[in-house]
Amino acid sequence: MNDCVFCLIVAGAAPATKVYEDDAVCAFLDIRPVTRGHTLVVPKAHADELEDLDPELGAEVFRVGHRLARAVRRGGLAGDGANLVVNDGTAAFQTVGHVHLHVVPRKHGDKLSFAKGFLLRRAHEPKATAAAIRAGLAELDSEGAQ
Amino acid sequence: MNDCVFCLIVAGAAPATKVYEDDAVCAFLDIRPVTRGHTLVVPKAHADELEDLDPELGAEVFRVGHRLARAVRRGGLAGDGANLVVNDGTAAFQTVGHVHLHVVPRKHGDKLSFAKGFLLRRAHEPKATAAAIRAGLAELDSEGAQ
Ligand SMILES: [Zn+2]
Ligand SMILES: [Zn+2]
Repeated sequence: MNDCVFCLIVAGAAPATKVYEDDAVCAFLDIRPVTRGHTLVVPKAHADELEDLDPELGAEVFRVGHRLARAVRRGGLAGDGANLVVNDGTAAFQTVGHVHLHVVPRKHGDKLSFAKGFLLRRAHEPKATAAAIRAGLAELDSEGAQ
Repeated sequence: MNDCVFCLIVAGAAPATKVYEDDAVCAFLDIRPVTRGHTLVVPKAHADELEDLDPELGAEVFRVGHRLARAVRRGGLAGDGANLVVNDGTAAFQTVGHVHLHVVPRKHGDKLSFAKGFLLRRAHEPKATAAAIRAGLAELDSEGAQ
């Protein structure tokens, strides 16, 4: 076990509010969300940067991010869109050295709260938020979407 | 043929400096780059938003973006990283209604020129830039990377 915080979260050895998990990928709430529902998707196998990440695993990470972007338009969040972002390398503002995809839910007219969120990055009701995202994923399932 | 500018580019009916193309995906320089080498990866089949995009095709788009992020660390651009961004929905600042993944090459210490690039978004030497990216892709090929 290394001391990478995302590896610890994947292993259940550090706390996080997980919203999705499968064999290859784990998704949990950002503890300093820019908007409500801001989620990180990580490969379970450690990779510092995209340079070290298996392309198949990268595709899996994006697949889960794509699904989350659709889930947050549903469920309790009822968003109007999302920003999906990988900051690859410290030069690109990557702050944790384990590849992660941000999924940042957005609403029409949220520009001001979005900007404020960037400054404050304050968590709010993680349990209710995670439940809302899981409800969105369940809604997608019930639509028979892939 | 619809009047979507990215569909026109894919079809060769509108000008663009393409850096990569396969059966499913096309990548070309952003005409208003934030940094040198700023590239857009699009699915060839039109999809307004992630909501309308086949997940397999989304994974292909990301696969090509992943490869480009590695290519711009090589070749003539010799970057230190990249931001990979999908703005999904007008609420999330999506400006062209055809799904696209931004790959924005970054260098250590480029924060000021990055910020300036956001304001100016001025093209510089597209032919030389595209050649530098293609050189990076060729370098990846010669490394035997996937
Ligand atoms: Zn790790
Ligand atoms: Zn189109």
